[in-house]
Amino acid sequence: MDSLERMILKHGEVKEGNILKVDSFLNHQLNPEFLYKVGEEFYRLFKDEGITKILTIEVSGIALALMTGLFFKVPVVFAKKTVSLNLDKDIYTSKVFSYTKNQVYNIMISKKYLDKSDKVLLIDDFLAEGNAIRGLIDLTQKSGAEIRGIGIAIEKGFQQGGRMLRGEGYNLKSLAIVDELKPGSIRFRDQEN
Amino acid sequence: MDSLERMILKHGEVKEGNILKVDSFLNHQLNPEFLYKVGEEFYRLFKDEGITKILTIEVSGIALALMTGLFFKVPVVFAKKTVSLNLDKDIYTSKVFSYTKNQVYNIMISKKYLDKSDKVLLIDDFLAEGNAIRGLIDLTQKSGAEIRGIGIAIEKGFQQGGRMLRGEGYNLKSLAIVDELKPGSIRFRDQEN
Repeated sequence: MDSLERMILKHGEVKEGNILKVDSFLNHQLNPEFLYKVGEEFYRLFKDEGITKILTIEVSGIALALMTGLFFKVPVVFAKKTVSLNLDKDIYTSKVFSYTKNQVYNIMISKKYLDKSDKVLLIDDFLAEGNAIRGLIDLTQKSGAEIRGIGIAIEKGFQQGGRMLRGEGYNLKSLAIVDELKPGSIRFRDQEN
Repeated sequence: MDSLERMILKHGEVKEGNILKVDSFLNHQLNPEFLYKVGEEFYRLFKDEGITKILTIEVSGIALALMTGLFFKVPVVFAKKTVSLNLDKDIYTSKVFSYTKNQVYNIMISKKYLDKSDKVLLIDDFLAEGNAIRGLIDLTQKSGAEIRGIGIAIEKGFQQGGRMLRGEGYNLKSLAIVDELKPGSIRFRDQEN
């Protein structure tokens, strides 16, 4: 998605440790009109998959998933992060290892909002090692629902998450894939539309 | 807003301790088309206020604020909750007492995304005692920006937040005001459009 690459080049900040900050339009300040276009693009990419529900994870995935849901006209569910593992039987839980924070956290969704009749599109802002998406895949599998697509805004192509998920057959599409990240130099992978 | 009252009556769950759960369309599962209409309604209510920025707080305020920003065509900033008080000089911080969790947490925004030239609309999902909104007011005042409106989806009219804020002259509008909350009986305040 050319407009996302332009936004990253114009507003992204490269920090030590292969961190790409996009706080000005995606993670702290949100640009609603731009995110609307991102939602439209995810719709274009996955519209033939029979999607009945969109699943994301708080916090940064919510804005993207909501705009995508507007085009699909289906509900959006966001997995919640919890400190303690809730023993409530009405929820599905999983664990996610956070690479940037070097800690494990629990995520949960209510069983009410995902079941085996659902065809799910997973949405998230970043994909690096793939840990957050693995957590969403685990929650979806526990519900019996079917994963029909994974939509990512920014994939770090130099980390292994995307390659592994594609290798396992997931229908993963990233709007921008960053293959190299240096201060003053961000290189994107060429992608077909 | 009649459609919000209908959604609350149809999908809301009243829990002990004056808790109203609206997880099926606002707090865990999101209804994008309905939230789009909520954004349109906030726009109708505040469109003459010269709003340049919308400020909310993670997590539940984000969806509402984003949809509102789509109509205003202005950036949306969400305050982040932090465990430790970050001493970074580039942020504004405040403290919020959570009534439901009986604990104090810190909130912050980057100074880059709010300054004295801004005319701010504060948006949140619930207003009860008003603690979260007080935190957003504090952040806004620290930035020197001007608060031109406060938009709330669901106000608990039997708690004091709304009455006090209106008494102080804030331009506060709530789309639904719940005056009584009992299992099987939710009473709304009559409001002029």
